[in-house]
Amino acid sequence: MNAKYVLLLILVSVFSFSVVAQTEAIERWDRFEVTFSGPQSGNPFDEVNLSADFSNGKEKVKVNGFYDGNGKYKIRFMPETLGEWRYKVTSNSKVLNGKTGHFTCVGATGNNHGPVKVADTYHFKYADGKRYYPFGTTLYAWTHQPQELEDITLQTLKNAPFNKVRMCVFPKYYSNVENEPVFYPFVKKGGMAGKKGEINFVWDFSKFEPAFFQHLEKRIDDLKSLGIEADIIIFHPYDKGHWGFDSLGKENDLRYIKYLTARLSSFRNVWWSLANEFDYIKTKPREVWDVYTKEVVNNDPYKHLCSIHNGSVYYDNWKPEFTHVSIQNGSTVEDFGRATLLRDVFFRPVLYDEVCYEGDLPQRWGHLSGEEMTSAFWHGVIAGTYVTHGETYKNSGDTIFWAKGGRLIGSSPARIGFLKKILEEAPGPIELADVWKDHKTATADSSHYLIYFGREMNQEWEFNLPKKGGPAAGKKFQVEVIDTWEMTIRKLPEVFEIATPETYRIFDKNRKKIRLPMKPYLALRITEI
Amino acid sequence: MNAKYVLLLILVSVFSFSVVAQTEAIERWDRFEVTFSGPQSGNPFDEVNLSADFSNGKEKVKVNGFYDGNGKYKIRFMPETLGEWRYKVTSNSKVLNGKTGHFTCVGATGNNHGPVKVADTYHFKYADGKRYYPFGTTLYAWTHQPQELEDITLQTLKNAPFNKVRMCVFPKYYSNVENEPVFYPFVKKGGMAGKKGEINFVWDFSKFEPAFFQHLEKRIDDLKSLGIEADIIIFHPYDKGHWGFDSLGKENDLRYIKYLTARLSSFRNVWWSLANEFDYIKTKPREVWDVYTKEVVNNDPYKHLCSIHNGSVYYDNWKPEFTHVSIQNGSTVEDFGRATLLRDVFFRPVLYDEVCYEGDLPQRWGHLSGEEMTSAFWHGVIAGTYVTHGETYKNSGDTIFWAKGGRLIGSSPARIGFLKKILEEAPGPIELADVWKDHKTATADSSHYLIYFGREMNQEWEFNLPKKGGPAAGKKFQVEVIDTWEMTIRKLPEVFEIATPETYRIFDKNRKKIRLPMKPYLALRITEI
Repeated sequence: MNAKYVLLLILVSVFSFSVVAQTEAIERWDRFEVTFSGPQSGNPFDEVNLSADFSNGKEKVKVNGFYDGNGKYKIRFMPETLGEWRYKVTSNSKVLNGKTGHFTCVGATGNNHGPVKVADTYHFKYADGKRYYPFGTTLYAWTHQPQELEDITLQTLKNAPFNKVRMCVFPKYYSNVENEPVFYPFVKKGGMAGKKGEINFVWDFSKFEPAFFQHLEKRIDDLKSLGIEADIIIFHPYDKGHWGFDSLGKENDLRYIKYLTARLSSFRNVWWSLANEFDYIKTKPREVWDVYTKEVVNNDPYKHLCSIHNGSVYYDNWKPEFTHVSIQNGSTVEDFGRATLLRDVFFRPVLYDEVCYEGDLPQRWGHLSGEEMTSAFWHGVIAGTYVTHGETYKNSGDTIFWAKGGRLIGSSPARIGFLKKILEEAPGPIELADVWKDHKTATADSSHYLIYFGREMNQEWEFNLPKKGGPAAGKKFQVEVIDTWEMTIRKLPEVFEIATPETYRIFDKNRKKIRLPMKPYLALRITEI
Repeated sequence: MNAKYVLLLILVSVFSFSVVAQTEAIERWDRFEVTFSGPQSGNPFDEVNLSADFSNGKEKVKVNGFYDGNGKYKIRFMPETLGEWRYKVTSNSKVLNGKTGHFTCVGATGNNHGPVKVADTYHFKYADGKRYYPFGTTLYAWTHQPQELEDITLQTLKNAPFNKVRMCVFPKYYSNVENEPVFYPFVKKGGMAGKKGEINFVWDFSKFEPAFFQHLEKRIDDLKSLGIEADIIIFHPYDKGHWGFDSLGKENDLRYIKYLTARLSSFRNVWWSLANEFDYIKTKPREVWDVYTKEVVNNDPYKHLCSIHNGSVYYDNWKPEFTHVSIQNGSTVEDFGRATLLRDVFFRPVLYDEVCYEGDLPQRWGHLSGEEMTSAFWHGVIAGTYVTHGETYKNSGDTIFWAKGGRLIGSSPARIGFLKKILEEAPGPIELADVWKDHKTATADSSHYLIYFGREMNQEWEFNLPKKGGPAAGKKFQVEVIDTWEMTIRKLPEVFEIATPETYRIFDKNRKKIRLPMKPYLALRITEI
């Protein structure tokens, strides 16, 4: 897949002799994969255990392998450390047990920045240190659509600002998404006529359908090529008894987690989302989520980002397995002063991953205006948190992006991209400068401020910033007026000079003011000259 | 103290004979106390262990006793079950070991409703089932003042609406509170001249000063007589090296917790507040609070309400020892839609115990207007949470109620009492009816609504309520216009009849509207006829 064979010149200087050898070279954070032939009889998913121990001198990593159908077994591994890695397979199958091999991990190139990790408590960085600001969108069932539609979705994403996608492993059966997928995750044993004449499929939950997972993996790799993280939703409640994938039972749920993590953990752009609306999955009691979460984390040697997403009741997001908080609650980013409250509770990044969607569905969660969706992003970002987009237009011929993918027709994506660029231009992540008192002023450091006014319209603005952590007297600043809707940035000619700070605020030494257009959704960027 | 000796006729019907005996009778939830003489030599606080096992047939409760000075040892016990209780003392002192006795627990009378407990997840009830809505005030150092001032404080509380007081065990050394207290909690060994000529006291932290605790207990009992709960702050940071009570060291801290809980657990109106602004006590690392909290809870056989109060960083309020959440953060009740957010995270009552104070101090935490303080209460209560008052006027001759007690001169207490009465008139505690969408409409049940408009002024209001959990079509309602500042309630003559509900809202069948005065701080009470 991403593996490249190159000629490596290994100089073993200690012994002063040189060896020329052909070794597989894998970029750091790329995927090493090896395939073995093994038993096909019985139920290989259940009956064959497979793992491998990878070692790079001192560092040792154990990974689970998996059966990929047709007598093929696979081991995947994502190296994080440069140099030669050796592996040895352990299996209850004599054919597989004891297999060994090696490869060389080389430096990352191009778009490869490694997996995303938590940084600075509330924010993220790629493993190579580059900042990652999540600007996600929602595509619950995009990988369960006809190939043509999936290709259109990828084309849309290529031109969209989003760098994270929330997506379900299992197909979704819900209003506006009721089509059968091309692939199913389990082997179909047959069908039975239901009460209303519909066909109820009968599954063998002990046998996975490799083609389903191979397709999913292709799509995750497609996202990786676009620089997009895949926030993989492991369970969801949108089944309504149609397939029964929300009701596998605990044993099959755990089997599925083990299989999924064995297949996907080596994908560097995977995040684990234990569930969407976990509390709406009535077949799974609250206490089982602890077990499932631990199963995911324990089977993931790389400790990808991990969260659980709520319906109307929150889970215990403080549990140590969760790297960040994934919240549904539109009201948190509907106005000022709210988004920050949960951040202070959890001491970890907060992603408002479901805040209603831009669209025209009759349901109130599906008919935000573009202005509301855009403003939600600003409210979240100003507060040092992050927000996820979704689009639910049901215009004639549209596939409803939030469900199936397709084309984006809303007005918020361009504005979200505009905000993303502004954030990327800051010297670092932004947070409220005076968190309990001023919910409009964010700062990256004492040289960089962003003030968002939301719906509030002001004829003028007197230069003023919170004193806390602010610039020293005498420092000079410029101000840019940002129209977050029109996506314009207008630099003002004035130079502002910081006066001796007052008790709580900092002003210009001449108390200079600026005029503002009487429009909503303005922001100011205030930066040291 | 509260014990009464009465003649009890005990009829032991099984054996058909009767015994007339003089037994001490203690009301349920009152305090039983017995005093023994014991050793005075050495350090009795440290060297004498003392506990007692109380038993009422099947129920067994073990309580710690304590040394009260002058060779006197005390055992206190708060019975919760009616009937005869027997006790037996265990001690390493031969004089005390093996002492026994008994008393009879009789029904509660008058003002005695028992200790306050959590009820309905987010609210409270007394042990006898009566609702308790916390409307607290702050009197950090009121028990460390001259007796005359303490008496004035009690007189003030008698006429104030508050039913909870946040108060420190240790004296407070802070701006506006720098006087020496009448009593100290530890035995003074002497004084040393400090660097600036001031006297630094030298304490024997292994010896408590019983008079200090006896005085504290008297004041807690005084509050009990007024129907006021004592939210006892065990540790606080306001010492500045003056006495060193914030820096006893872990061993002495634990010794103090054991002594305090042995003395106070039997007081039914005691709540434990592990600390005020725990994160500002720089001598105690974060991890120690777990140890201290467990020590408090394990030494309290009655499991009084228990919380920990933050400075600028929250503690882990989800830990099982905490019965409720005690938050400092004024912004949570400054506007709509915020207070409810923390409630949903913690699944327990949320008390916004510090939201800035009504007063005229230069610091922004100490200069809320009466309108702001009152509105903070409404914002909290509407959201199903509770708010605590504090007054910081530094008018000539005033003692600053928040610190030392004295007289209340602010405008909010009367309005807070007005709100308290409105809440008490509801059929039960109120909560937002549609928590993520409508932050102004609270409901007790489908027959009782309270809408608060805050600073928003409306010329008219169309009768409308959230559909969720709302009344059925055809039900008839009346509306009262409440002026929360003028403390008036005006009942409108109109009768409103519920129409068939729309998707999210319920209207009057004729879409009736009412006129409202163009004033801020109005509320509506909407009740079924």
